[in-house]
Amino acid sequence: MKVIVLGGDGFCGWPTSLYLSKKDHEVIIIDNLSRRKIDLELGVNSLTPISFIDERISAWKSISGKEIRFENIDISENYQRLLNVINEVKPDAIIHFAEQRAAPYSMKGSYGKRYTVNNNLNATNNLLAAIVESGLEIHVVHLGTMGVYGYGGAGMKIPEGYLKIKVTNEDGKDISKEILYPPNPGSIYHLTKTQDALMFAFYNKNDQIKITDLHQGIVWGTQTEETELDLRLINRFDYDSDYGTVLNRFLMQAAIGYPLTVYGTGGQTRAFIHIKDSIKCIELALNNPPNKKDGVKIYNQMTETHRLIDLANIISKLTNAEINYLPNPRNESEENDLIVDNQCFINLGLKPTKLTDALLEEIKEIANKFSANCIKSKIVPSSFWTREQELRK
Amino acid sequence: MKVIVLGGDGFCGWPTSLYLSKKDHEVIIIDNLSRRKIDLELGVNSLTPISFIDERISAWKSISGKEIRFENIDISENYQRLLNVINEVKPDAIIHFAEQRAAPYSMKGSYGKRYTVNNNLNATNNLLAAIVESGLEIHVVHLGTMGVYGYGGAGMKIPEGYLKIKVTNEDGKDISKEILYPPNPGSIYHLTKTQDALMFAFYNKNDQIKITDLHQGIVWGTQTEETELDLRLINRFDYDSDYGTVLNRFLMQAAIGYPLTVYGTGGQTRAFIHIKDSIKCIELALNNPPNKKDGVKIYNQMTETHRLIDLANIISKLTNAEINYLPNPRNESEENDLIVDNQCFINLGLKPTKLTDALLEEIKEIANKFSANCIKSKIVPSSFWTREQELRK
Repeated sequence: MKVIVLGGDGFCGWPTSLYLSKKDHEVIIIDNLSRRKIDLELGVNSLTPISFIDERISAWKSISGKEIRFENIDISENYQRLLNVINEVKPDAIIHFAEQRAAPYSMKGSYGKRYTVNNNLNATNNLLAAIVESGLEIHVVHLGTMGVYGYGGAGMKIPEGYLKIKVTNEDGKDISKEILYPPNPGSIYHLTKTQDALMFAFYNKNDQIKITDLHQGIVWGTQTEETELDLRLINRFDYDSDYGTVLNRFLMQAAIGYPLTVYGTGGQTRAFIHIKDSIKCIELALNNPPNKKDGVKIYNQMTETHRLIDLANIISKLTNAEINYLPNPRNESEENDLIVDNQCFINLGLKPTKLTDALLEEIKEIANKFSANCIKSKIVPSSFWTREQELRK
Repeated sequence: MKVIVLGGDGFCGWPTSLYLSKKDHEVIIIDNLSRRKIDLELGVNSLTPISFIDERISAWKSISGKEIRFENIDISENYQRLLNVINEVKPDAIIHFAEQRAAPYSMKGSYGKRYTVNNNLNATNNLLAAIVESGLEIHVVHLGTMGVYGYGGAGMKIPEGYLKIKVTNEDGKDISKEILYPPNPGSIYHLTKTQDALMFAFYNKNDQIKITDLHQGIVWGTQTEETELDLRLINRFDYDSDYGTVLNRFLMQAAIGYPLTVYGTGGQTRAFIHIKDSIKCIELALNNPPNKKDGVKIYNQMTETHRLIDLANIISKLTNAEINYLPNPRNESEENDLIVDNQCFINLGLKPTKLTDALLEEIKEIANKFSANCIKSKIVPSSFWTREQELRK
């Protein structure tokens, strides 16, 4: 099929683009390189030496013989160019990764809040408005986040997007309904994904746009079969306190002999997924579009849950790294349980890649190999959720 | 108190500003005059000959002796100037009317959708981020809409913002919760108000911003005691198919001998409030801010509900106007019931101004007096909810 990958130069977007290209889909990447520009702004870098997008694409062509087309478009700003590409390509599906995706960056003062809201909400709305204007039937696959649900489950299993509720009516009778799970975002980034969800519901209701929203857990791992083929194809690896995901950060810290930075008690439980599984889930979603008249299809894209302190302990045992408990820069519960339903993807055939020492070893190798690229001053938190936390730092 | 009125040059904002000024509050209007600019874009006008904002303000000063300050700022674009005014004025409250407020305009093709999302969401986020950055304790009073609830009540009374639900947990036990009422917006405009609500919940949770959200019904009427004092103070009166509210539109149509434009069967039931009551509600909200640790306070700002066809019949009887049933340009249920809880404002002392022949008479006078200003071609619908409806027109 023909697939446009919005944000196809990023951490999830790039390996997804390669995987789909390998599977003989026609892949068109649209990206404004914002993730690389934010690296410049923050003075951080990918630990792995990622190539520029044109070099990536030409390396892929020389290795696989397959073409990937690239368009540098800011879809939050340049609606007309986005629409032109859609009209020209007539894609079967558009995968939407084109959002600012770091919770800490989204809380980095007014600028981070404003950039995230402006970028993410205009990107999503422009995409949906363009599909309506094109008149084409295009399946949108969007990367959401487990964070839309909040982390105060109170012993309840988190369903896949929708919640069955009972409401007592005027006559005292209980009426059953199914509603979008009541959102409880923990940062401006997560907030924008809950606002995206309302856009999806509206455009689906009004214009019958086919939409799949993937509420993804925290991604760990770096390489995929495709990105491993050549150094020029290597995926990015973020270790800094804004963009590094927690497991990758810990492994990097261990690799350079830096104490593991645990926020608060480490009692926070979060959902995880390996990057290879993340990409398989996207393929499963592409191959199973909802019907036009269905509502938005929502999957929980995660395979396991862990308490952060347990992960720190596993890595500490594996590497002898110390654990350093830092004041939590976030505004969140110290402890939470988290039970998540992920039956939809399991039913479609997903075989979860669970966290094992062997896989951790692989990331450790990456971290070790490129540890000289690490800028140590970027490891400690630099984004704070509230003014009080910022002043206290 | 010191009050900044965002959107203080508009249909609700202007009479609110005058009322608060008369009551000896210090009023600062911030407005980018976008409503007047949209008039130019659409080639429509206020039926009433509204003065420019500087003339309005100097007329008010010569009549009342009171100063209103005006700043021309686009708060969706110019964050720094908004922040500067907040830091300088240190207001007790900010009333937020600064959103594109016409459902049809928000569905006027991609441009209307994109303008509405960009303007409304950035305006609200900029305001909240600026209050956090200022470090000041400021009460935000926001104009929401009854449309956030949707119009498929199924016999249930619509509560004020929050819904009590029961959820069955893993052990088969029912757990009671209170959630933000599940949104069901009927246009991009209404969508942005449901997205605003998520921003309010987040900023209240994270930063303890005090927020009151007023879910207003359709406003009818034009003049208030203050705007009636002088022709230079007259309020705007929209009669066109994009910005005219239904009751004002019908009365205008009757005044010029144009058949009343009923969409579909007219079986739609909507909530209404007179403009004088709307302003009193805002005053009540200002005088009763929530506590910092409370959640967002939500009121239903409406006083009665009517089926649109019943309103058309009342006006037809009063004026002998014919009724013209048009294909509905909107995507909505043909018929709905609507029972709304508005006890909060009643408890605070609101005495509803109900629709009577006498009050309709007053609007009819306005419509008659200025009927020569009407551009008749702007009465029929020019915004359509879907491509199919647009093509069919």
